[in-house]
Order: sequence, then structure tokens, then C-alpha cells
Amino acid sequence: MNIYDIAKKAGVSIATVSRVLNNSARVSEATRQRVLEAVEEEDYKPNVFARGLMLNTMKTVGLMCQDASDPYMGAAINYLEAGLRGRDYEMLLCCTGPDPEDKQRRLSQLLARKVDAVILIGSSFVEKTEEENRYLYQAAQQVPILFLNGILNGENIYGCMSDDYKAVKHAVSYALGTGCRSPLFLYRADTMSAGRKKAGFISAIEDAGIPFSERMCCLSGRNAREAAECLKALRQNHGVFDLVMAADDELAVGAVKYALETGIRIPEDISIIGYNNSYLAQCCTPELTSVDNHLRDMCGSVVDMLMKIFEKEEIPHTTVIPGELIMRGTTGR
Amino acid sequence: MNIYDIAKKAGVSIATVSRVLNNSARVSEATRQRVLEAVEEEDYKPNVFARGLMLNTMKTVGLMCQDASDPYMGAAINYLEAGLRGRDYEMLLCCTGPDPEDKQRRLSQLLARKVDAVILIGSSFVEKTEEENRYLYQAAQQVPILFLNGILNGENIYGCMSDDYKAVKHAVSYALGTGCRSPLFLYRADTMSAGRKKAGFISAIEDAGIPFSERMCCLSGRNAREAAECLKALRQNHGVFDLVMAADDELAVGAVKYALETGIRIPEDISIIGYNNSYLAQCCTPELTSVDNHLRDMCGSVVDMLMKIFEKEEIPHTTVIPGELIMRGTTGR
Repeated sequence: MNIYDIAKKAGVSIATVSRVLNNSARVSEATRQRVLEAVEEEDYKPNVFARGLMLNTMKTVGLMCQDASDPYMGAAINYLEAGLRGRDYEMLLCCTGPDPEDKQRRLSQLLARKVDAVILIGSSFVEKTEEENRYLYQAAQQVPILFLNGILNGENIYGCMSDDYKAVKHAVSYALGTGCRSPLFLYRADTMSAGRKKAGFISAIEDAGIPFSERMCCLSGRNAREAAECLKALRQNHGVFDLVMAADDELAVGAVKYALETGIRIPEDISIIGYNNSYLAQCCTPELTSVDNHLRDMCGSVVDMLMKIFEKEEIPHTTVIPGELIMRGTTGR
Repeated sequence: MNIYDIAKKAGVSIATVSRVLNNSARVSEATRQRVLEAVEEEDYKPNVFARGLMLNTMKTVGLMCQDASDPYMGAAINYLEAGLRGRDYEMLLCCTGPDPEDKQRRLSQLLARKVDAVILIGSSFVEKTEEENRYLYQAAQQVPILFLNGILNGENIYGCMSDDYKAVKHAVSYALGTGCRSPLFLYRADTMSAGRKKAGFISAIEDAGIPFSERMCCLSGRNAREAAECLKALRQNHGVFDLVMAADDELAVGAVKYALETGIRIPEDISIIGYNNSYLAQCCTPELTSVDNHLRDMCGSVVDMLMKIFEKEEIPHTTVIPGELIMRGTTGR
């Protein structure tokens, strides 16, 4: 049973059926009745395509993330999906991987599907140059673009950010206050979010009278195992460090592995702080002190912003959610 | 620019535009030309809804999982999305949570969206009774239902399974061969997959001449922290065990925590084996010996099966992928 059958049964054109289902005024009451009776008799559930055609929306939001197996992104997918579902929106998910060309292709595929908006998880979708970001500005001419923990300045582009700068500054200041003197910032990629964290790290150590050097920043491999190896190499080449501020929990878990494998005591000889407060924070021994960036609140805020945009409400381009340091066994010597 | 504008420009009804775009024979050549010219002049990309209405498909597959933040499910989402994208299908993702009513509601929402098929990640979607599974049988009357690592016997229902029984039997036999005598099976929920793993566990210990008792099976809490606590309580009440065969890596990580926190040496005093060989296996120290169930192959197989179903090819209802034991530091005393 589809819209053609209804039209046939009611003896009208499918355009007329469309108008009735769309509550258009340009239909006589008699015709409306005839169509609705046909719909009822046939137990017709309005075809989703017909409804899409009429309203030019399928109530679908595109979600792009780099990697759904990342614990942070996986949790964000859960929260966003629940939030959208609660508002009657379905979610088309794209796992883009890191390649910029794949990101662009996937975004244009989403637009071709007439999604009502696109949400991007993570600041990895913010590239360095305007040229590289052009596809996002172009997409924003068609639908609202919302970043979870990222932002670009542009019309119809919005973001909810975790206050990475303040959260890292606070965490590092705390650790320096317990006596750490040789801090290290361990990160995975030069994203916008990593940049804010690094700035917070630098501010904290300079406030403590420690001069910053780029040698205090270590670009790690892509997982815990590789992070541990990076730290071992660093120790051989550059000497000891007694505080690792990691840009995410998996790297911090790598720092715990490094310490356990080289016989360095945690937290007596080294303090380790993770970021995201994901379930990984409780998977290692000792468990990680970690910054909770309140991912659930961020996701809720993104969905709220989106609904207001759909309602044509004015909203600020950026919402900022503060972080919180959760104390566990890897700090407090 | 939508189908209404095309109809207006060509001076025909939208039904006629639909017929033209649908290659219907019931349109005169002159009308067809007029419509196609209007489409061309307006640079009209066939509206995805119009195409859906005409072909009754949007080339979209629904994917249901309980929890995207689970490392196993997150990885499966990545692989399935890549496989579907490679065949030009988009993916509507539902994170259902564990509640059966939510699962049913989400499935019917997917069907209302006219997805071409539904893939279910994990055997947690297979319930105990026919009554509870009825909604799946009903859905299979509309679209193919494919399980990733699960199966139900029914028309239009397919599954690709990891050979959990054999893989666990092999892993436990190996550990018993290294001298373990007090084995424990640690699991999270009574799923179909956990049942197969338990059967493999029982078969291995009985082959080794150890009589099975239900006390050798421990239903754990839901994360590593809770698994560690379960094991501590178990040790107090039921005495020592020297082998933990866990149904997934997170529980095995919990067993590592338990050993580290109670001063039990790994692998000298206790052997621990995980399942899935996820990145968690390399997040703890020592790193986990774990069964790799070749998730990538399973996901590839599910997508292949689906494409064959769409092509009306005959395929077996179940495909089985063997597992492989990956040796690391938690076994081999």
C-alpha cells in the first residue's frame, strides 16, 4: 500500500493525496474526507518517502565521527542517539576515518540524503586552513552544522565545547602543587582540542615558575602500547619526568603501562592524569585520575541547540561546559 | 528546487514527474522531454525522497546495538559502516540499551523508515522465548534480519557467528595444559553467545577430567571494577581459582585488577584469558591473552550476505568464523 494506491482508491491525483497529508489549504473539504477515508480503510501508514517529499524532511540527523571504537566517541554516539530519538529524529551514522577526502565525501553523501542537520563528533573535523574547512562552510549553507567539542566561525555553524584549557590548567596546577617539577604533555594529534589542552598545560607550569619548552610535549603513537613505548624512548633521550598530563585516557593508560614496565612507582615517582574520565580510567591499576568533561551534558546541549535551531530560535554559536578533575590512584604523592 | 518546482516548470502534475523519473511507460514522449528539460535546466538532482517513493528504497540499512561505547560493538559499527558505505548503503544507527521494549520500539521505528534490512549486533538481541522474539520474526516478514554473532531459526533471518564454543574450549584446554586446576568462567549476561562460551568451557574441563560445578561460573557486574569486586567476594566464599576464562576483555581486565589488588601473581598463580582481542587487551599490565573472534571478517561476511540477499541469491542461514587464541602475558605459567 503506497501513496499511488491511496490516490487511486480516492480517485484523486497523488499530488492531492500529498496536499491532504501535508495539511495544505488548497484542497476542498470533500476531497480531504475522501482521501482520509481511503487512508483509513487501507490502514495506510504515511509512506516515509511521501512524507519526506512533502515536508522536505525525514527528521534525520547525520552524525559524523572518525572512529566509533574510540571509547569517547562511542559514548558520544550513545548519548546523541538517545537525545535525538527522544525528539523523534533518527541518526545516519558515518565513521569517516582520518582522511580529509573521506570526510568531505561522507558529508556530501549525507547532504544528498537530505539530512536536517549534521553533527560532527570531536575537534578532529576542524582543519587548520580555511581552504580545508571550505566544505564545512558550504554544507552550512544547506543545513546547520553542530560540533561536539569543536567550533568554526561561520554562519549556521554551532558548537558545544568542553573547557579543555581551564580543565587541564586546573589539573596540572593541582599536580604541581603536590610536588611534581618535570611535567610532560602527552597527546595524539594536533587537533583543536589538543591545542586548547596544551595551552592550559603551558599556563599552569608557567604560573608555577617552570619555564616551558617544546620538549615537554610528546606526540604519542595511536594507542596505549605505543604511548608506553614513546615514553620509554623519551626517558632515555631527555631524562626523567614526574608528571604526565595526557590528552585522553588511553594515552594515560599507556603512561601507567610505561611506569609499571620500567619499575617507576605511581604516584610516588610519577603522577599521571587522563582526560575524558572514560571507562578506561577504571581499567588500569592504579586507576586513573582523569578530567571528566561531562560528555553527557555536552551531548544533551548539542541536541538542545539543534532543536532550538529547528524552531528558529536565536542561540549563541558556542556553549561551554566546564570540566571536573576526578581523583583516583595515579596522583597525590 | 524540488519535485513541485519541476512539475510547475514543465506544466505537469508531480505524478507525471514521478512517472518520468521512474521510467514509467505511461507518459508520452513529448511530456517526458518537457519534464527532462525542466530537470536539466534547473540542475535538479533527483530528490532522495522522490527516488525513495518511486523505488521504495533509500538504500539504507538499520543497525541496532545495545551500547556503542562497548569496544566490541564500537569496532563492529566501524566495520559494518565501512562495508555498507562501500556498497552505497547508508546506516541508520539505534543504540537500544538492554530493555526489550526499547529494542522492539526501535525496530519498528526502523521499519517505518523503510530500511532495506536490519542488522543486529550481538547475541543480546536473541531472547529466551519464542514469544519474546516474535517481534523479530514479524520484522523478518518485511525485511531481511541479519545477526552479527547471533541467530534465530526463521524465514528471512540470517547470522554470521564466531565459533565461540570451539574458541573457548581451545583456550581453556590450553590453560589447563599449563597446569591450571581450578578454572572459573566469568561472564556478564545470559546471552546466546555467553551460553556457547560456557558450553566450550565445560567441555574443556570435563575433557581434562575436572568435574563441572555451577560454582565455576560467575555472573559478574557490568564493568572491570565490578568484575574485580565479584572475584574478591568469590575468593572469600568459595576458595581459590587459578584460571579465569572471561566472556569479554573488559571482564578479563577486571580479573587482572583483582589479581594485582590482592597480590596474586599473573601468570604464576592465576591465568587470565579475555575474549574479543579488543584494544583493552593491550591496556592492562600484563597484557591479556585473548581470543580474537575476527570481528572484521564477521562484519565483512554480514555485508556480503546482505548484498547476496538483495540480489536474490540463495545463501546459507548461518556463516561461522573460527576464533584464534592470541598469546600475551596473562597465561603460560
